[in-house]
Amino acid sequence: MAITVVGSIAIDNVETPFNKTGDVLGGSASFFSLSSSFLTDVKIIGVVGSDFDRDHLNIFKDRQIDITGIKTEDGKTFHWAGRYGYDMSDPETIATELGVFASFKPDVQRGCEGDIFFLANIDPDIQLDVLNQANSPRLVALDTMNFWIDGKKEKLIEAVGRTDIFIINESEARLLTGESSIFLCAKAIFELGAKILILKRGAYGATMFFENKFFMVPAYPLENVIDPTGAGDSFAGGFLGYIDSTGDMTFENLKKALVFGNIMASFAVEDFSVNRFAAIKTDEIEDRFKKFREMTYFEELLPIRQ
Amino acid sequence: MAITVVGSIAIDNVETPFNKTGDVLGGSASFFSLSSSFLTDVKIIGVVGSDFDRDHLNIFKDRQIDITGIKTEDGKTFHWAGRYGYDMSDPETIATELGVFASFKPDVQRGCEGDIFFLANIDPDIQLDVLNQANSPRLVALDTMNFWIDGKKEKLIEAVGRTDIFIINESEARLLTGESSIFLCAKAIFELGAKILILKRGAYGATMFFENKFFMVPAYPLENVIDPTGAGDSFAGGFLGYIDSTGDMTFENLKKALVFGNIMASFAVEDFSVNRFAAIKTDEIEDRFKKFREMTYFEELLPIRQ
Repeated sequence: MAITVVGSIAIDNVETPFNKTGDVLGGSASFFSLSSSFLTDVKIIGVVGSDFDRDHLNIFKDRQIDITGIKTEDGKTFHWAGRYGYDMSDPETIATELGVFASFKPDVQRGCEGDIFFLANIDPDIQLDVLNQANSPRLVALDTMNFWIDGKKEKLIEAVGRTDIFIINESEARLLTGESSIFLCAKAIFELGAKILILKRGAYGATMFFENKFFMVPAYPLENVIDPTGAGDSFAGGFLGYIDSTGDMTFENLKKALVFGNIMASFAVEDFSVNRFAAIKTDEIEDRFKKFREMTYFEELLPIRQ
Repeated sequence: MAITVVGSIAIDNVETPFNKTGDVLGGSASFFSLSSSFLTDVKIIGVVGSDFDRDHLNIFKDRQIDITGIKTEDGKTFHWAGRYGYDMSDPETIATELGVFASFKPDVQRGCEGDIFFLANIDPDIQLDVLNQANSPRLVALDTMNFWIDGKKEKLIEAVGRTDIFIINESEARLLTGESSIFLCAKAIFELGAKILILKRGAYGATMFFENKFFMVPAYPLENVIDPTGAGDSFAGGFLGYIDSTGDMTFENLKKALVFGNIMASFAVEDFSVNRFAAIKTDEIEDRFKKFREMTYFEELLPIRQ
């Protein structure tokens, strides 16, 4: 069992009210693959420029991530610079330079047959191209953002129609569907063809819709958030990684997968870039799962006074 | 066992993007008492003006709430007018006319000995006056708001020092303590003397701190929020009502109490004013508790792949 992720590999500059980075590794495929690597095998399909510091690739190699699908092309690596305010959410984008990512044409290589595919937040035309190349993917999961909802809605809707698991920010699901109620959002998205919907709520956790079932978790509470960048992709990595490692699509197991998503996101934001993933051990992940269960578990109700 | 609530009884005018009310019953003591009346006996200590529509009192009487502590004084009843935006949180205040509430001097009557006291969001000087009058209250719970944190911080801190359960919005706990981390907020508030801290997160639920234990719940998800006014006081009513009805201060039971707070708040916001409380039955409350447990329960972890 394995996951193939198609997404960005970026060089980020991140600024918060408390600190700032130099040129650090970022991008959806980076966060996703490192997060899911704690649970299953992962392959990256992506592109970097000729300026890309090869030392960054060791971060992936150290976690046994398959990087044969990362192409190097003449030009600059995708670059993003952003600044967070005191609320540590919704960063202001200072610079976006697409570089070689502007002409990214993913090649789905041999060896990806039967994988779970995670199509990170990229141009819906590219997501559709990957779906056309993918040889009977076991499961397709898709992320997107307001930029594509505004600019390429039809293509995005086509991609959602070929998706099993749609992972999206709650506010963007409202934008896409024009519905305020999350239940009506889910209904509209199921009508587009997705089977499972995950709504991400940033610092407030996530909700999951599957058939007529519903599950929700608050975010894992942290003493100190250093950098929220990559939280959503790390969440998706934990969620799909757990699904892939168990091969169990029952609702009870999907719930646990959502908790893994939550927990991998909690690690991601505890340091800049993907640094935190270099330092965690499997038992720390298990420990956070157990703690999270204690923090949210309550007993059944005995009859109350009439 | 019973609860005495000291707070406001108001006439509200509420406007949302979708609807607006005429003159309707509002105020912290109204929402709190109606909410907790589904779980235990409640007495209100409050004041209304000579203009107060006596029909409103029947709303309390119908729920067996003790209103002998509601004084009527010459003048106008406390009046609040507010307007919600599309996010349906943090209303803009259009008018606040204190009327007879400006000179409110609560009399703690005989019969309140040994009650749980809920001191709703009022002037800390009045909260302290009630604490001086109260004859060995079984438990004291306190709410407040940014207005008192800014204007009467010393008196508020004195009141918190005499409080068992401090219930406050998360953002206001940050304002009071100057701490960003909720764990450091809790530490600072415990140092002031409170034993249990509840942080309200509006549409995102609540967290509870007790000794070194921590519990959190997302908000009960709703198809349609009509009017968020009174959610916080209804939450407190459900929380303290369940504590009073069970007499059980173990952490496991406090968790259930928090869920009851959550659920009573979810009813409150499904209609304008206190209207929703006129229509619910005990089995609907129990049903929501069970549904909420299903929505948030997940199984223990089996060891994951190393």
